[in-house]
Formats: sequence, structure tokens, C-alpha cells
Amino acid sequence: MRDVYVAGVAHTHFGEHWDHGHRALLLEAGLGALQDAKMSGDDIDAAYLGTMGSGAFLGQEHIAPMLMDDAGLAGNHIPVTRVEAAGASGALAFRQAYLAIASGAADRVVIGGLEKMTDVSDQQANAIGSSAIDREWELANGATKVALHALIAKQHMAKHGTSREAFAHFSALMHVHGARNPLAQFQRATTKERVMAAPFVSEPLGVFDCAPLSDGAACVVLTSERAEGRIRVAGSGHATDTMRITDRPSQTAFAATRVAAERALAQAQHEIHDMDLLEVFDTTTVGGLLALQDLGLYEPAQVGKAILDDAITYGGDVVVNPGGGLKARGHPIGATGVAQICELTWHLRATAGDRQVAGAKRGLAHAVGGIGSSSLVHVLEASA
Amino acid sequence: MRDVYVAGVAHTHFGEHWDHGHRALLLEAGLGALQDAKMSGDDIDAAYLGTMGSGAFLGQEHIAPMLMDDAGLAGNHIPVTRVEAAGASGALAFRQAYLAIASGAADRVVIGGLEKMTDVSDQQANAIGSSAIDREWELANGATKVALHALIAKQHMAKHGTSREAFAHFSALMHVHGARNPLAQFQRATTKERVMAAPFVSEPLGVFDCAPLSDGAACVVLTSERAEGRIRVAGSGHATDTMRITDRPSQTAFAATRVAAERALAQAQHEIHDMDLLEVFDTTTVGGLLALQDLGLYEPAQVGKAILDDAITYGGDVVVNPGGGLKARGHPIGATGVAQICELTWHLRATAGDRQVAGAKRGLAHAVGGIGSSSLVHVLEASA
Repeated sequence: MRDVYVAGVAHTHFGEHWDHGHRALLLEAGLGALQDAKMSGDDIDAAYLGTMGSGAFLGQEHIAPMLMDDAGLAGNHIPVTRVEAAGASGALAFRQAYLAIASGAADRVVIGGLEKMTDVSDQQANAIGSSAIDREWELANGATKVALHALIAKQHMAKHGTSREAFAHFSALMHVHGARNPLAQFQRATTKERVMAAPFVSEPLGVFDCAPLSDGAACVVLTSERAEGRIRVAGSGHATDTMRITDRPSQTAFAATRVAAERALAQAQHEIHDMDLLEVFDTTTVGGLLALQDLGLYEPAQVGKAILDDAITYGGDVVVNPGGGLKARGHPIGATGVAQICELTWHLRATAGDRQVAGAKRGLAHAVGGIGSSSLVHVLEASA
Repeated sequence: MRDVYVAGVAHTHFGEHWDHGHRALLLEAGLGALQDAKMSGDDIDAAYLGTMGSGAFLGQEHIAPMLMDDAGLAGNHIPVTRVEAAGASGALAFRQAYLAIASGAADRVVIGGLEKMTDVSDQQANAIGSSAIDREWELANGATKVALHALIAKQHMAKHGTSREAFAHFSALMHVHGARNPLAQFQRATTKERVMAAPFVSEPLGVFDCAPLSDGAACVVLTSERAEGRIRVAGSGHATDTMRITDRPSQTAFAATRVAAERALAQAQHEIHDMDLLEVFDTTTVGGLLALQDLGLYEPAQVGKAILDDAITYGGDVVVNPGGGLKARGHPIGATGVAQICELTWHLRATAGDRQVAGAKRGLAHAVGGIGSSSLVHVLEASA
């Protein structure tokens, strides 16, 4: 397997884009990533797109070749592959592209992540989002994604002494981070008190515990060619688990995250504690807390306290989600996994501006599909 | 890149399955393929699923880990990847699995192809099928998939002297082939006269020129391990083209098919004329005719005559779609590309029973997404 490098990254502003369609969003991110890579479309020999619900959100399947065509790249007849793993769709596209280059099947690949969620009603958008869980066995019985996260939160509180404040403080930290990210959907800091005062979505999780509905696109260019300023993909891990959390021995840990992290870190020959920053998948605050635990950063009984102690922000143990995470940056589903790579890259290049994690050399990105049914972990490292 | 072999294959009966859900269909095919490979689920280290519209047909995204779980294989946390390229979804899953093994990322992979199309109304099913073309630029202007095929048919007739009878005879041959396939949706032979007498869907194409709506699943097990009776994947090609046929220099040829075939045949070090049988993608009869032309088998002005001369059936130049093709075997969208591999494998193993292509050593499978916007070609070869 060959070494693979991140050559270019870009993502659009995440948020409600009433004046930009899905075509315009992906085009903006794609041209941005190519420009950043100092490449043209003709340099690209394969493409991967991660999108969860283009069929349901836009009535458009087979969207990957369509978007390549919109970008003016149809003429070279390159192989273009769409993948889907719910919230992990973008991360899965990144992994498939990584494997294509590592194996020698391609040399320069562009990866897109996309979701346009606001062209349907909020109710429809939430229903599509919840199609990541088992429709017949979970959804039909009244469970939604947030309701299942709320059950996990309650169990974590009962079993490990985690406090409601810890979830709320996680959210507040994400909003503090997002306030420094001009591409974030929410750029205003908030406090844990305000998070706790917000209306419940599913008790104990409130509105501020949940990632928003968002439009956005993100693109990354990967290459086999090493060059100054390029960031090496040091490890890639992908694991799955049962579809339903009720079928697992524990409901307060995602084994898929643990296994994916073990695989990626083993390949990278690093420990989780070697990371300078993490991009973790906080569709809810409890999701973010689980990630810190399942990635091996903190013991279940310690993770809540670590959050409350500001161990996961600037000046702490490790900076988590400096761009604001799904909570504040926004969560255009298929785009998120690719945007995480953008954020890591900016820090590892030391070009993250106001929110730069000082001296960042290594970062990890973590994405989840469904309620821990798929997990992908990637380790990126600044070239020496 | 390592050699890759087909170790096991199975597909369900294709047709209307009112008493089997999507879970049961994939499980039947998956267990069949594992049994055929003389493997158990624990031998598998990765999985790929091709399905076009699980979100739209079933309200279920993130279906790949769900189906792995249903098969009892969640415990090993293997990487499971869903891909989508409309009608070529199954073929794309096959290619990604092939690349995973060729690159050394996996050793034994199961590939699933699935579509359950009859749980929605026929009108809905046709609308979902047509989401493979450009909703905003084609569908919104009144084009459907069949209407675009009809335009191609008319141009081919005007430009190359192809006759209506040629399309009709293609359909009749598929039905003759399907009559010998116990897994086919339609197992009754018909004549070109009957095809031509059927009501139009989009003139000149009638009901018998179009593949049906179908339920079904197909699975293949691939491995890096050579063994007696295993079939080598000799070549894999994947190419894309503009989304809309109006943006191409010619509307009577699919460049993506030509390029994908060139790539696969170059890798296999074969010519198209070396093939003993072909599985081509006949969503309509004109689609089948285009395939024969774009794969390089016949010149545009000769292909209609070749069909009428029975050159594409037993005793002719090459046997095309011995299992009945999409027309008679049925077309559960995501399953088709995988079922094509099943059919080739049965012939290359000389276990195809009544419909065996005598002495078959090499076969080619061809799938298309949209109106020639994606094409995948695979070459399989019996081990010496």
C-alpha cells in the first residue's frame, strides 16, 4: 500500500442556503479544493462522493456522475463512485478514495461530501435523517435518532455518574469553538446554563444538545505524490456493529468506534494520546461524549468530568472540534466527514487562523453512521 | 494488484415477491453465495452492497450494516460499504470489492445487490427509477428513462438503418433465453411479432421492449485465494460520461461503455471477440443493441442485422444474456450487476444446466447507470 497525502481541501459555509442549490454548493467546494491543491480537473483520475439521502432530499439518485459533469469533468470518463453510510457517508467516501490511491488504482482523487437538507420541510428532513436507524424495528416503534441518544445519555448518567451539566458544557464548548469559524452555521458562543434552559427534544437532550439541519458541501483532493505542505493519511479504520443498540451487550459504548480507532491507530503506529486535535462526531452532545470515551481518551466514569474541566479545549488535554463540531459548524450529513478532514488539514498546515491549535502535528477524524452501526476513523499527520 | 477469484454466487428468483421482504431476499442470496463458496460468515472480512433506492423504495438508508446484521455477521465489526450508481449499483459494488481484494485491503469479501421495488406503487417505482436521470434538466422537462431510450432508438433507425424488427427480435431472444432460467421473472418464450404488437411505452418502444419492475437480491463471494472451480476476475473497467445525452457529441452511442470495456479488456488482455458469452444491460431493447455496438462487437450499421440473424444466441457469434437479460430475468435494479456475475460464473463453471453455453471459458458483464452516464464492465475467465 502506497502513502497517500491530502493535497487540497475546501468546504462551503454550512447553514441554510436558500440561494444555492446542491450543484452550486458542491461546485464551490470542488473548485476550492482543486485550487488549494494547485491542480486542475484534468489532473484527477477518480472521484468519490458521500451523500446520505440525495434520493430522499432531492429526488435525485446517480448524483455522483451528475455533479462531476456539472464541474466540467465528464470528458475524461473517470470512474466516479457514490457511497452511503448515513452520517459517515463523507468519511466513507474519503476511505474509499484513500484505498484507491493506496492500492495504486488511482493517483489523484477528488472526494466530495454533500447534503442539501433545507429543500424539504424540517419534519421531512428529520424523518430522512432517522432513516439511518432501523425503520421496521426501531422507528416504527417510536424511536428516533435523538430519542435513542437520550436513552444512551440516561444510561450513562445512571451507570457512570455522568452529569447533565457535562453534556451541556460539551455543547457550550462547541459553540465557543464555532464562534471562531467563519464557515460555521452558528458563530455565537453560549453557556452551559443556556444549553440546559433550552426546550427538550428528548429528555435529557435539549435543542442545544443536537446538531442542526444544514446545507453544505466539502471536498478534499488526495494524491500519492508527496510534496511540501501535504498532510499524510497515516491510518484508516472502518468498522460496523449491530443496527440496533438493543442488540448489543452495552448501550453506553459504541464498539464500532473503538474497533475503527484501534485499526486506524494501529496502522498509524500511534496512541490516541498522541493526537493534538480530534474531530469527533457529535450529532448530539452524548454522541460527542461517547466518542471521547470510545476512542480511548477517557474512562467512562471520567469523561463527563474531563469535559467540565475544559480538558477538551484550548489549554486542555487535546482540542476537540476546533471548528465547532457538528453542533456549531453544522451537519450537512454527507459533507461532515469530509469537512472534518478539511479542519484537520488546516490545523496541521498551521493555517487555521484564530482557532489554530498551536503546534498541531497529528489529528484524528471520527464519524458515525446510525446509532454506532458504522464508524470510520482517520489519522492525519503533518509530514516531517 | 493481486489476482481475485469468484468463490461463490447465488441469486434469488427475480419477480414480484409479496411474501418476502428485502431482508429475506438478501439473506437468501447471501447464505446461498457463502454455501456455494464453502465458507461461513466468519471467513468474510469486508462487504459491499449495491442498491439504488433503498431510501426512496423502503425509507431505509444505512441499509448495508443493517443487512449484515440480519445475516448474523455484526459481531466481527467488518467494514461494510454501500455504493450507488443507479442501474450499475451492483456492478459498482462488485468493482469496489474487487479493488479491495486486489489491493490487499481484504481477503474474502461478500458483495450484495438488492432492490425491492414492488412495495411502492408502479407509478412511484417508475419515478424512482427515473431519478437516475437529471431531475432538474431532463425529468422536469418531461423526459423519462424510456422516453430518452426511445429518442435514441429513433436516431439509430434514422442514422444507421436499424429496423424496429431488430429491437423486437432482441426482446424475443431474451424471452427465449429466460424460458430456460428457473430464476427468471418471465419464463415464457415470445416472438418478435408479439413484441411489436404490444402497446407503446414511448414510441417506438413497447411494453416488451422494457425491463420490468422486479424484487430480488444477488450475492457473490470474492477471494484472493485461487482454488479449483474458482473463476478469475480478469479485468474491471469503470467510466462515466455527461449526465444528459444532449450534452454529448453522439446520441446513438454510450462512450462510457466503450471506455469501460476498453479498460477492462486491456487489463484482461483480451478482445471482445474472445468472449464466449456476454451479460449486457438491456433496460430496453435499444439499450441492449447499443451495448453490442459500444462493446465493439458490431458496427452501428451491422448490429440490427446481427440480432435479426440470431448472431447473439446459441449457435451464433456469441451468446448474449443466456439467463434472459434484464428483459426476461427481471431487473431489481441494484441486484442486476451482481446477478450478471452469477450467470457468467455458472457458465464458466459449466453448471448452467439447460442453458449452458458449451465450452464457455470467458465472459463479460456490462452494466449502465442512467442514460449511459456510468458504465461498468467486468471480464471473467475460467482458470486454466
